[in-house]
Amino acid sequence: MQVSVYLDHAATTPMLPTAQRVLVEHLSRTGNPSSLHTAGRAARRVVEESRERVAASLGARPSEVVWTSGGTEADNLAVKGLFWARRTQDAQRRRLLVSAVEHHAVLDPAFWMAEHAGAELVLLPVDADGVIELDALRAELEAHGEQAALLSVMWANNEVGALQPLADVVALARRHGVPVHADAVQAVGQVPVDFAASGLDAMTVSGHKVGGPGGVGALLARRELALTPVLHGGGQERGVRSGTLDAALLASFSVAVEDSVATRVEHAAHVSGLRDALVAGIRAAVPDAVLRGPADATRRLPANAHLTFPGCEGDSLLYLLDSAGVEVSTGSACQAGVPQPSHVLLAMGVDEDDARGALRLTFGRSSTAADVDRVLEVLPAAVDRARAAGLAGRRSEARPAAVRRSGTSPAGVR
Amino acid sequence: MQVSVYLDHAATTPMLPTAQRVLVEHLSRTGNPSSLHTAGRAARRVVEESRERVAASLGARPSEVVWTSGGTEADNLAVKGLFWARRTQDAQRRRLLVSAVEHHAVLDPAFWMAEHAGAELVLLPVDADGVIELDALRAELEAHGEQAALLSVMWANNEVGALQPLADVVALARRHGVPVHADAVQAVGQVPVDFAASGLDAMTVSGHKVGGPGGVGALLARRELALTPVLHGGGQERGVRSGTLDAALLASFSVAVEDSVATRVEHAAHVSGLRDALVAGIRAAVPDAVLRGPADATRRLPANAHLTFPGCEGDSLLYLLDSAGVEVSTGSACQAGVPQPSHVLLAMGVDEDDARGALRLTFGRSSTAADVDRVLEVLPAAVDRARAAGLAGRRSEARPAAVRRSGTSPAGVR
Repeated sequence: MQVSVYLDHAATTPMLPTAQRVLVEHLSRTGNPSSLHTAGRAARRVVEESRERVAASLGARPSEVVWTSGGTEADNLAVKGLFWARRTQDAQRRRLLVSAVEHHAVLDPAFWMAEHAGAELVLLPVDADGVIELDALRAELEAHGEQAALLSVMWANNEVGALQPLADVVALARRHGVPVHADAVQAVGQVPVDFAASGLDAMTVSGHKVGGPGGVGALLARRELALTPVLHGGGQERGVRSGTLDAALLASFSVAVEDSVATRVEHAAHVSGLRDALVAGIRAAVPDAVLRGPADATRRLPANAHLTFPGCEGDSLLYLLDSAGVEVSTGSACQAGVPQPSHVLLAMGVDEDDARGALRLTFGRSSTAADVDRVLEVLPAAVDRARAAGLAGRRSEARPAAVRRSGTSPAGVR
Repeated sequence: MQVSVYLDHAATTPMLPTAQRVLVEHLSRTGNPSSLHTAGRAARRVVEESRERVAASLGARPSEVVWTSGGTEADNLAVKGLFWARRTQDAQRRRLLVSAVEHHAVLDPAFWMAEHAGAELVLLPVDADGVIELDALRAELEAHGEQAALLSVMWANNEVGALQPLADVVALARRHGVPVHADAVQAVGQVPVDFAASGLDAMTVSGHKVGGPGGVGALLARRELALTPVLHGGGQERGVRSGTLDAALLASFSVAVEDSVATRVEHAAHVSGLRDALVAGIRAAVPDAVLRGPADATRRLPANAHLTFPGCEGDSLLYLLDSAGVEVSTGSACQAGVPQPSHVLLAMGVDEDDARGALRLTFGRSSTAADVDRVLEVLPAAVDRARAAGLAGRRSEARPAAVRRSGTSPAGVR
């Protein structure tokens, strides 16, 4: 296997050894947690212990944990489930408020609800750092708060690492009886996350972002919150989310959450040290590189660095670095290969050309100072080559200005 | 660990050794299949090879495989996705046809679409064996075929094991341009399943029912079939199903499908031999036990036995057998603990009292003749005790006649 420098932990991060071990331990056990016999009850116990472990790690009650297949499903359940349930209670509440920098797992359900379920979509603006404009939120709520079905603002942005002022967001929303959901997929294990203390009504967590397995996640949701299911069926998870629960995945996920939260402080110090060294090194080597997202480390995910390189195509940079054994991304993995510039950068006011030169470097538990050195060794030459290619490319083609990518509505999909 | 006789393989079955090995092998690899760097592309390769493996095993093209989190999600995508997409194309097509014996993962989405999306739900009747009445389907299609959005008929019933006459169902539906979905969760690995040859438009497969991991499944869907997503987001799976794909789960799932299909003939002979011996033994020991579902072995899942025991509560029988180390179910695991009698048995015309005395015994690869002997050793006494308890219980309580279980709409869920 190629020895590579993996700096794309925000896309997915290796499984923690504990999480791997727990998963393997459970693979040879059988029993559907819905079954009433001994094997079923044993599987159910594993599921409920896992629920308690996740709840305890995140400041929630076990009954507030709704298992899902991952972050995307949890976001869909939050946005659609809250909207449908609220509109059933109060037909007036049709405004669906989301920040303009949400992950597509929030944005796309919101767009779809606007097209198909009568939602009035409100995209809330952010500042140049990618942080939601509280004044704009306040104005929206004062003008139309009684028509708002829900508000979704991510805990930390997956591209530029901006932490959102959730306490202020929740306080504003509460005045108008608007439930708040936060996608905390990137936050857990990097910054303190306490569901009860946050005042949130619902919160998304994902397994493979915290060293757990893929294909599993959770929506934390206050018990009294009305949620229309997205997946109907056997009635698992109090009828909010049907589908057979997998004890092995859930046990492994719960251990990953527990471990990543328990070791958060050391982890954050470790990755922020590496990140700061990397950013300083890049700025020294490529003086016109621009750090995106908050410069203040207390307002940013510790593992995240995001820069734009004027005159470069991010994809060119990515491939040049990859050929040098350095794995990074241009933004969200879910948007990789999409020719449009990041909606996050555009919402921050970055112009399209600059936005195309984006590079996201995200650290994880396995990251080392040698990784930083290697990036600094190969990046300057990659930037030079990407610039040369970028200038050549710009002479030969015009680019469309569409913000939403075409992948949202491929042929045959409404 | 207690050495128990596990005869609930239809609820979930142990992972095949090959599927376990493949899962474990992939656990330590990192890479989001949507990422463009080397690790991402390696994960993508695993995902696509798994797709080819599943497709080849089930007579489908790789491009027809849409990964999901399991059977329930695939059923939801089929029922909701087809209905929404078809109604968008033709507002007339609002009738949603499903057999009365579908799994709740089909029935409950159908009920919900009737309550919330303007669907006109048509429950198609079955005969005393649990097989769809083709005459009733023909009459429905002749009268209202132009208003039908879709038809969902399972390949094999999960409770009584009845195989459905899908070739006839498909032929009838085709005449009226009605797409057909089949939940084939129980069929794969037990009977021949060829997606192309079936003429189906969509078909559901689940990992943990075929010796694969939990938390993973697929909807096979013809490329030209319009499907509205149930989970929106990053645009994975041609935009039909968003969410980060997990290479480890998919690789393991694909190997389980491949192995269970490759060994199907021997497996079916093995389990049907055990099943026939069990049924004969039970009938000899408990002469008034009634085999439910088709008596003809060619019209029934080879691993399935389902009987009702007059005067017994199935749950009492289940617990008595469990305490003797024999693990079985009363029907669908997803409905376990639900006090209402099975909708499948009621649709077959079984009266409520008889339906309460249901026991499903389903075999798997690990099943042995000793398992059959053990059941026959402990069942007669369990039936006697359950009858005594059942008679006592019947004297002291009246029972509600509701067919749908309360779990469908718990407090706070619409």
